[in-house]
Amino acid sequence: MSTDQLANIGVIGMAVMGSNLARNLAHHGHRVAVFNRTTARTDEMIAAHGSEGDFRPAAELAQFVASLERPRRIIIMVKAGGPTDATIDALIPLLEPGDIVVDGGNAFFEDTRRREQKLRGAGLHFVGAGISGGEVGALEGPSIMPGGSAESYEALGPILESISAQVDGEPCCTYIGTDGAGHFVKMVHNGIEYADMQFIGEAYELLKGLGLSHTEMADVFATWNTGDLDSYLIEITSEVLRKVDAATGRPLVEVIVDAAGMKGTGTWTVQSALNLGTPVSAIAEAVFARAISSSPDLRAASQAALAGPSGAIAVDDRAAFIDQIRQALWASKVVAYAQGLDEIRMGAAEYGWDINVGEVAKIWRGGCIIRAKLLERIRSEYAAGSLTTLLEAPSVAKELANSQDAWRAVVAAAVTAGVPVPGFSSALAHYDQARAPRLNAALTQGLRDYFGAHTYRRVDKEGTFHTNWSTDGAEVQED
Amino acid sequence: MSTDQLANIGVIGMAVMGSNLARNLAHHGHRVAVFNRTTARTDEMIAAHGSEGDFRPAAELAQFVASLERPRRIIIMVKAGGPTDATIDALIPLLEPGDIVVDGGNAFFEDTRRREQKLRGAGLHFVGAGISGGEVGALEGPSIMPGGSAESYEALGPILESISAQVDGEPCCTYIGTDGAGHFVKMVHNGIEYADMQFIGEAYELLKGLGLSHTEMADVFATWNTGDLDSYLIEITSEVLRKVDAATGRPLVEVIVDAAGMKGTGTWTVQSALNLGTPVSAIAEAVFARAISSSPDLRAASQAALAGPSGAIAVDDRAAFIDQIRQALWASKVVAYAQGLDEIRMGAAEYGWDINVGEVAKIWRGGCIIRAKLLERIRSEYAAGSLTTLLEAPSVAKELANSQDAWRAVVAAAVTAGVPVPGFSSALAHYDQARAPRLNAALTQGLRDYFGAHTYRRVDKEGTFHTNWSTDGAEVQED
Repeated sequence: MSTDQLANIGVIGMAVMGSNLARNLAHHGHRVAVFNRTTARTDEMIAAHGSEGDFRPAAELAQFVASLERPRRIIIMVKAGGPTDATIDALIPLLEPGDIVVDGGNAFFEDTRRREQKLRGAGLHFVGAGISGGEVGALEGPSIMPGGSAESYEALGPILESISAQVDGEPCCTYIGTDGAGHFVKMVHNGIEYADMQFIGEAYELLKGLGLSHTEMADVFATWNTGDLDSYLIEITSEVLRKVDAATGRPLVEVIVDAAGMKGTGTWTVQSALNLGTPVSAIAEAVFARAISSSPDLRAASQAALAGPSGAIAVDDRAAFIDQIRQALWASKVVAYAQGLDEIRMGAAEYGWDINVGEVAKIWRGGCIIRAKLLERIRSEYAAGSLTTLLEAPSVAKELANSQDAWRAVVAAAVTAGVPVPGFSSALAHYDQARAPRLNAALTQGLRDYFGAHTYRRVDKEGTFHTNWSTDGAEVQED
Repeated sequence: MSTDQLANIGVIGMAVMGSNLARNLAHHGHRVAVFNRTTARTDEMIAAHGSEGDFRPAAELAQFVASLERPRRIIIMVKAGGPTDATIDALIPLLEPGDIVVDGGNAFFEDTRRREQKLRGAGLHFVGAGISGGEVGALEGPSIMPGGSAESYEALGPILESISAQVDGEPCCTYIGTDGAGHFVKMVHNGIEYADMQFIGEAYELLKGLGLSHTEMADVFATWNTGDLDSYLIEITSEVLRKVDAATGRPLVEVIVDAAGMKGTGTWTVQSALNLGTPVSAIAEAVFARAISSSPDLRAASQAALAGPSGAIAVDDRAAFIDQIRQALWASKVVAYAQGLDEIRMGAAEYGWDINVGEVAKIWRGGCIIRAKLLERIRSEYAAGSLTTLLEAPSVAKELANSQDAWRAVVAAAVTAGVPVPGFSSALAHYDQARAPRLNAALTQGLRDYFGAHTYRRVDKEGTFHTNWSTDGAEVQED
């Protein structure tokens, strides 16, 4: 077997994500070694899809490794956690310095940092690659966020870019940064996705409060999808709302149990932001909204005990209010993106990653769940100049200024009518906190100094101060 | 030296919290062994306060241990983290089975669980005791939340109860549960404290928006402190607002830099709630409000770019609106307590603690920072019957029903005027989510099934379902 006959990339794990990724690679002309711990799965994949391209199935891991040209490029697509570690441990003795191991699962970025360090010690490259787009994306072109050494990207990047989604002729894949940077960015992507869906849900409840039928709501979302809100999630919201349940003839969404599941990345986004001191309040509200929806005991007890308005919204001009909801949704969405990008900026500073936020927005324009027209604007604003936060980007700030009256009116109407809008109101509070010349934190500092001698700073001079609250009331400088 | 001359309790760490706790013990007739790694600190404490009671200073740890009657009761009051572990490691070889080691610092409960397990293996009792009340509380009577073995509480409880705050003749100290239960409950206490302070800050900003002077605001809080809001934090808010800065003649709170500090327990409360799936959204907003206040770059960039109303509030009847703010503050506070107590319920279930929530409310009535009239109502409601959540307690639900119109009006006025009220609005959203017969989570589940085949449940039959969204549109049962 001559070298040019060896596979140029390998995939371990033939569950649906792994086999779809292997097929995507083969469709793009790559010679793809494939392996699964249970060989039957590999056999099934080859039986069903072997004719789609140049696959090299292996029954043993050593055979799989031997079938790859060097440096070996191996993408692991197995369950996060223990199975990933077990696969890595089995691989290490079979590899040689310079080989590249890719984890394409939803690993927590701290685990990726740990694994990268371990493999680096063995002379191997470890790449934590966030892959978004679900099963269809894996097959047809996902958004790919690879972290790891710059050297590994030279060997791996062209292959990943060839199978990613393409927008305006550019791949939705770029080098993110060292060690855990790729999985960190993918984590934040998912956190933004939580917020996006919560905002859509709040808009839906407001439209319901106005008395729209599900067909009318589907039409509203379809219309919104032709403007600034143009995005995959708005598009499929329209389809989901339009869907009629065959069994009952009712709108399907009314037949679905209103308890949202989650798989951890939203939780990690908020927990990591808390470690970084980054305010991601709107994302947090979205995660907690799922948590309360899946708290049946809490809800049953509260429903039996608590009174309040019905959620019906009375307005004079329904069309005008619907357009205000659109603006509230857009403005809230911008805040959630800003919070997520702030977290990336803070994470990069904390973990030593040189992340180009504009490039991140660019590769989110296609393939992934949050793909949206807004991302092109974000890309172009970050390309135009250095930004601390998305909110200060000129076209964004201007549009927020134009949208804020509607945003405020919608939140006011929702709280009056008893429609829960934790996302809209939290995003609006972030907007008002961010622009406020003074925040109530000064009082907090006064209270903390009173009960805990935590000290405070003064606006008019340097230093740290404490007031002797319980004795002579004098102020003393602490340092 | 006969046994009855030995010290009956010892304190390690003579910084202000440790020395105040030692003095409190001595004031209550205990024979207190004291030790500090740097002996000079022990000498200073004895020089200043040795005459206040029966202290047994020790220059060496072995001497300290030898001066204690058995089972030895040793309270560690050193910095959380490494110093605590170092102290424990130094103690272990000097102790005998049955001895009791207490960590009185703000340890993370998972660390306490780890330490308890380690010491249990060595035949020792380890007690993680949350102590609230700051320096003054430590000296004059704190609220104490001890976790650990029930056996250790038999030997330790009477001493801790003797030095705790007392309310209606009852100590603000009770056995919480095994291993990390005490530190977990103290963590949640602090999370509630964050929310309490954020709500007070929002009320303050609203009063400022109405145009009240700081003296008038101080008077409002003083009046509120005579009613349902009666609490330590409301009381000292009045004092802080009334304080005039000697250097400038301005209200001190206007001279303090509006960037709030934090030390981690609020962050832990939210991170732990996320692990448990407990919605603590209002507490999270309070933590994020501190985070954004301490983000100078983000604020400077946003202030320069973002437009919005000034925060001035125009109302016809100022006195009536002030009373609405009071009701919004009270209702929001109830939600934050409910969220915190929900977290305790969920934590107890997860970690196997048998926590009596009513008893927790009881020991928070005095000594600690969140001591408030509301806690007596909470104690009595939990004593009257089993509650899933505080919100369903009859007197609480009734008062919330009475307050909600005002609460909604205040949030609506705030968002219209551009005053950030993330706490009030998040608490109100929690109220409306908890009581809602249907939540938007059904749409979320539809979307997740669409893009990720995550499946959904149906309201009308058992099972897990998936719609073939991109093919024939049929519904299939997955299990």
